[in-house]
Amino acid sequence: MRATLMFGPGEVRVEDRPEPRILQPTDAIVRVVRACVCGSDLHPYHSIPVSTTGQAMGHELIGVVEQVGADVRTLTKGDFVISPFAFSDNTCPICRDGFQTACLHGGFVGGAQAELTRIGQADGTLVKAPATDDEATLASYLTLADVYLTGYHAAFMAKVAPGMSVTVIGDGAVGLSAVLAASRMGAEQIILMGHHQARTDLGREFGATDVVAERGDEGVAKVRELTGGLGTHAVLEAVGHMPAYHQAYGVVRSGGVISRVGVPQYDEAPVGFGSLFGRNITLTGGPAPVRAYLEDALADVLAGRINPGRVFDRTVSLEDAPEAYRLMDSRQALKVMLKP
Amino acid sequence: MRATLMFGPGEVRVEDRPEPRILQPTDAIVRVVRACVCGSDLHPYHSIPVSTTGQAMGHELIGVVEQVGADVRTLTKGDFVISPFAFSDNTCPICRDGFQTACLHGGFVGGAQAELTRIGQADGTLVKAPATDDEATLASYLTLADVYLTGYHAAFMAKVAPGMSVTVIGDGAVGLSAVLAASRMGAEQIILMGHHQARTDLGREFGATDVVAERGDEGVAKVRELTGGLGTHAVLEAVGHMPAYHQAYGVVRSGGVISRVGVPQYDEAPVGFGSLFGRNITLTGGPAPVRAYLEDALADVLAGRINPGRVFDRTVSLEDAPEAYRLMDSRQALKVMLKP
Repeated sequence: MRATLMFGPGEVRVEDRPEPRILQPTDAIVRVVRACVCGSDLHPYHSIPVSTTGQAMGHELIGVVEQVGADVRTLTKGDFVISPFAFSDNTCPICRDGFQTACLHGGFVGGAQAELTRIGQADGTLVKAPATDDEATLASYLTLADVYLTGYHAAFMAKVAPGMSVTVIGDGAVGLSAVLAASRMGAEQIILMGHHQARTDLGREFGATDVVAERGDEGVAKVRELTGGLGTHAVLEAVGHMPAYHQAYGVVRSGGVISRVGVPQYDEAPVGFGSLFGRNITLTGGPAPVRAYLEDALADVLAGRINPGRVFDRTVSLEDAPEAYRLMDSRQALKVMLKP
Repeated sequence: MRATLMFGPGEVRVEDRPEPRILQPTDAIVRVVRACVCGSDLHPYHSIPVSTTGQAMGHELIGVVEQVGADVRTLTKGDFVISPFAFSDNTCPICRDGFQTACLHGGFVGGAQAELTRIGQADGTLVKAPATDDEATLASYLTLADVYLTGYHAAFMAKVAPGMSVTVIGDGAVGLSAVLAASRMGAEQIILMGHHQARTDLGREFGATDVVAERGDEGVAKVRELTGGLGTHAVLEAVGHMPAYHQAYGVVRSGGVISRVGVPQYDEAPVGFGSLFGRNITLTGGPAPVRAYLEDALADVLAGRINPGRVFDRTVSLEDAPEAYRLMDSRQALKVMLKP
């Protein structure tokens, strides 16, 4: 089969690879209908160590079940499925708490930018969806594998509710998804911090009430100006770099919440009296347990209440995966879909 | 009047000082009936810069209103009052959110280890209580100025609820108060990490179901053993030093909450993928807005439902304040009350 591999920084190739096989009786093999490139794939795109074997890429996919292991009970060949980016048994105590990304028997999907991929804990992980040829529906389905529900997780962990003010840091696909989710949850004011106009325009369509293009101290001052000096109840941080963290505690209201879903590219950060503690700021977030939210979001998509698939602004064939990375890394594309 | 001053590390003296005066029309002057030494007073006791003028000490008190400013509406001379350690107007947007320690017009009480002290924003800050000579009631009243409600805040911010498991780090008066609060909120398992037996015994009376005397990695392993390997839903951190922070993320369950009320003696700490983010750990807490909780807790004290004053194991005269500091710093006393 054809699969996307990364051999070093900027070095992405599509090559022939052996087809994945059932390894555990709880596995399923899924034929990929659509995959995509994630903002988090750009971190290795800059820093992955050079190798000759290559790293199989991709963790977001929708597809059709091709084969199931002996213990799989709820799925059969031919089922159309959405796959969360993390697999989970969905029955352990941590899954029951709603944190499937920390499932005691889980792990992360790999090699989804390919024709076929293996999904662990298939019964717990995969969610069936009505098969369709409609491109807009496929796009929205694919966002439920990661990006929309990662934005949703930021808002969920911040307990966004009617009347609240929210700042979203980052106008990438996750940030825009966080805007959409915060809007769905009834936030009154949604300030999107970002400076790519095509993206912030989509953010406004998703529900942003204000856009702040300034960064750093200037950006913080602007958000405070927009909130009577107080800052916002919630800050949804969809970047993962330290300047975004500093910005977050600069714009959060006393007693408010910073909810991070951008994978932190740092280990330590300010949490002392002057940053978080003194004003009772809560820091929350992590890898989104999209499995917890998937059925409800799927119902919203099918009913036409949300259209998160709009974050995809390009579709290329699987063979053009290297170009997909290039487009996203150069910010020419917001999010690129791959069609095997 | 007589007042407690600190002139350098370990250098506490009780001296004559001018009586405080009304400075703002919203001020009140309170004659102190009982004050006490706080665990947080021990930080300057070790590290305060040497001075010849001295620093007026103390932020916890109960007393009788002696004089009120022209704008004070709800208090009159002779009222018996409990004073939160922070003053607040209790009407600004942040106070209405329940975070009075970050009041837009607030500040911190100072100089309470004295015969008289000035309280700002008196209408918003002071809470009237039935006058009494009963020593146990006075002791419990005094805990509502800070220590009990600081422990309560840790549990409140962690959203402790029936069925939850909780680890409390620290067997000082705040840690024991956190045990009592978690127990009142219905926590099923309360693991107290501490190694002073007289204190952990009181912790058991307050509701601790388990005591772990081990520290560091050993202590973490012990808590995991007591929780089927999972850790606890909430960790209430009542110390403020870095080893306690490390212990906190070591014992917290995936998706759980670390709630800090020990004033952090560090600025930066691990918050990345390996510590907080990867397992969706929430970090919360800060200076307790005791004003938000005071009326309810007072009702609990008056009804005999809680007896938080038991954290006081010594009472000395105001003149013996230096001895009070010495007893607490050497861990010979858990918490010392001062009687002017």
